[in-house]
Amino acid sequence: MHQVTLTGRLFGVRAMGKRLAFATLRCPDKEYLCVFQGRPEAPEESIVRITGQVKPSEKSKKFAEELHVSLVEVISANSSISTAQLKQVAYNKDILPNQHIYMRLPETRDRLLKKWTAIKAIRDLMAAESYVEVQSPRIVGRMTDGPTMKFKVDFFGRDAYLTLSNLLFHTAFTAGDFSSVFEISPLFRADINHSSQHLSEFLILEATSAYRGREEMMELSNRVVRMVCGHTDAQLADKHLADIPVVTYEEMCAITEKYDCSPLVRGGRIKRYHAEAVGRHLGRKLFWAVDLPAKHKAFFSSTRYEPTADAHVANDFRLYWDEVDLIDGGERVTDPARLLERLAEQSLDPQHFAYYLDVLKSGVPPLVGFGMGIDRLMVKCLNLSNVRQVVPFPRFVGHFEP
Amino acid sequence: MHQVTLTGRLFGVRAMGKRLAFATLRCPDKEYLCVFQGRPEAPEESIVRITGQVKPSEKSKKFAEELHVSLVEVISANSSISTAQLKQVAYNKDILPNQHIYMRLPETRDRLLKKWTAIKAIRDLMAAESYVEVQSPRIVGRMTDGPTMKFKVDFFGRDAYLTLSNLLFHTAFTAGDFSSVFEISPLFRADINHSSQHLSEFLILEATSAYRGREEMMELSNRVVRMVCGHTDAQLADKHLADIPVVTYEEMCAITEKYDCSPLVRGGRIKRYHAEAVGRHLGRKLFWAVDLPAKHKAFFSSTRYEPTADAHVANDFRLYWDEVDLIDGGERVTDPARLLERLAEQSLDPQHFAYYLDVLKSGVPPLVGFGMGIDRLMVKCLNLSNVRQVVPFPRFVGHFEP
Repeated sequence: MHQVTLTGRLFGVRAMGKRLAFATLRCPDKEYLCVFQGRPEAPEESIVRITGQVKPSEKSKKFAEELHVSLVEVISANSSISTAQLKQVAYNKDILPNQHIYMRLPETRDRLLKKWTAIKAIRDLMAAESYVEVQSPRIVGRMTDGPTMKFKVDFFGRDAYLTLSNLLFHTAFTAGDFSSVFEISPLFRADINHSSQHLSEFLILEATSAYRGREEMMELSNRVVRMVCGHTDAQLADKHLADIPVVTYEEMCAITEKYDCSPLVRGGRIKRYHAEAVGRHLGRKLFWAVDLPAKHKAFFSSTRYEPTADAHVANDFRLYWDEVDLIDGGERVTDPARLLERLAEQSLDPQHFAYYLDVLKSGVPPLVGFGMGIDRLMVKCLNLSNVRQVVPFPRFVGHFEP
Repeated sequence: MHQVTLTGRLFGVRAMGKRLAFATLRCPDKEYLCVFQGRPEAPEESIVRITGQVKPSEKSKKFAEELHVSLVEVISANSSISTAQLKQVAYNKDILPNQHIYMRLPETRDRLLKKWTAIKAIRDLMAAESYVEVQSPRIVGRMTDGPTMKFKVDFFGRDAYLTLSNLLFHTAFTAGDFSSVFEISPLFRADINHSSQHLSEFLILEATSAYRGREEMMELSNRVVRMVCGHTDAQLADKHLADIPVVTYEEMCAITEKYDCSPLVRGGRIKRYHAEAVGRHLGRKLFWAVDLPAKHKAFFSSTRYEPTADAHVANDFRLYWDEVDLIDGGERVTDPARLLERLAEQSLDPQHFAYYLDVLKSGVPPLVGFGMGIDRLMVKCLNLSNVRQVVPFPRFVGHFEP
């Protein structure tokens, strides 16, 4: 038995008759069971400094020791709502203004910690694979040209934009002989999309490697996904992560014809219900889609039989988990003449990509790369319904406060 | 002696008479000395595939083995300038359009690799100190109110801004009981500043810790700076990193009076020449400035003798290396009433900080935090003159391409 003074957040106050009360004190290192004579004179979930005697706990299963309180000082009073009140509410938009309180709930804390430590684990894995993390700019200019909606930034009176992808810069880094690079960073998309999987600002892993091909990059992607699933204790039968099946776009067209959904017509975009049907057909949660129509891929994607014959099939890969696409990647055009053709196919102005052409003209090794939506992957691993549940301050149409 | 086929960048071609030529082949894993019969038929710095015989090197000191070339295939021709041409040029703005070629120079490669691996080392150090890396949004709203110039983003027709600091969000995370958080991320400042230490988009380490005070945070900062200096082989006598002296603002005023510069007048801002004079007086490259006027610090900074008496001295710390401030930090206001006073002192609209006030009203532990400019620290460690030298695609007034 010894006296201590501890500072932390007081919560879960339970009165035992009029004379006794219990509560939990959450300190940075651990939580303590507190025993009060009478009810503590501090609003629940305030930051308090408690002085008392530590004794072995008599009844608690959770705590080995109890803190018998002699003095409570309120350091910072809670005059707001409590987690107990928030706990009654299902996750929805109304949570957002109380995000800081919502984070105190053990289940919220657990999923955010899993996400944040998973990101560290991805960085460690990429470093172990000899990838170096670079930094591309968030503010970019004409290289954002394309069909994707972008956010405009007033850059000292001129129109700049928030970046849509780091991959064009990664090509420049590999041209600079950094042969394996990656980046975990936010990207920005200004499309009006109200889906539960969509944010205007979202976190992505993007990687590019020189002197490697599609199969090697799919293998690396597999290792990342498997590691994150393990790290987050994703509830997923082993078979779903072992030998993830590879399905061509052609095969997807054939499979969806058999199912009770409007089939994937050759040349058409893969919709969520197509992906779902294919996964159901395979009996697998995850599968790779490859050989998509090149017109659905970014202009810098190379095509499967380049530069001859069938230039319309991309040399690409895309990972689906149920109906959600988590990874999108492929090999890249390195020939400047072929890039001009690809730009023309997508009605893009070559002048906007003059720098990218300069990069290719300087001699660029064979390239492959991918992007993986980290928020989306977390939603799947943690079996959540909405991507906002893993992003404390999400940005979406009409929402940028706080 | 065995035959190999290798793909890489061919550079440094040296003819030895008409019959022989040497060159270097840079592959992702290592560099090879190549021996050609005649001059290789490939533009210098192209990506080539070389077939040849490996033999022990007879004359080279750098390479143990030589590759005697029988076949050269050009994979991607360089039709641009070479590093040899760029090497003649001192670092200036004209380098930027050729950044990808400039990166091939060993000295550029070395400093970028040092920066990128230092960032990984900082993340590892912070994780070892039990800090978790969080993500705050880049797109923010009214909480960017203040004297610092900011970039406006058109967010679906409404005015949003690029973030000036993550620290306000860090306060929210600590209110959510994540007691030690950090973030390495880009920040944005739209002030028109042409100094060699200034960028519109720059990388920063920001950290916040609950239940800790100024001294502990200065100690952590010291550990980070020392580690980065070691990691980058900074040429700095040991004494400069051991027991970095702490100087109050008052003392800085007194010291600068003795020097041949316009002295630091009480209440005035610390200029670069003031910092330089103090460092010279101390005989030290690095020193901590503390107890600055609170009016020079952000509204969320607490004051030294809060909440009574002399409310005009901040409970802060700032690290100078020569004339450059690398770290700025301090303890934070946690009392909502005091925050309203601080907002009023700085003529800021409390309505813009309604969320931040909500956070404080929910009960916030004692807080301290700091920001450290990573690009600036690298410039000092690597003894460079311009912060753009460690940022391949820098953004500054009038410059956002490529």
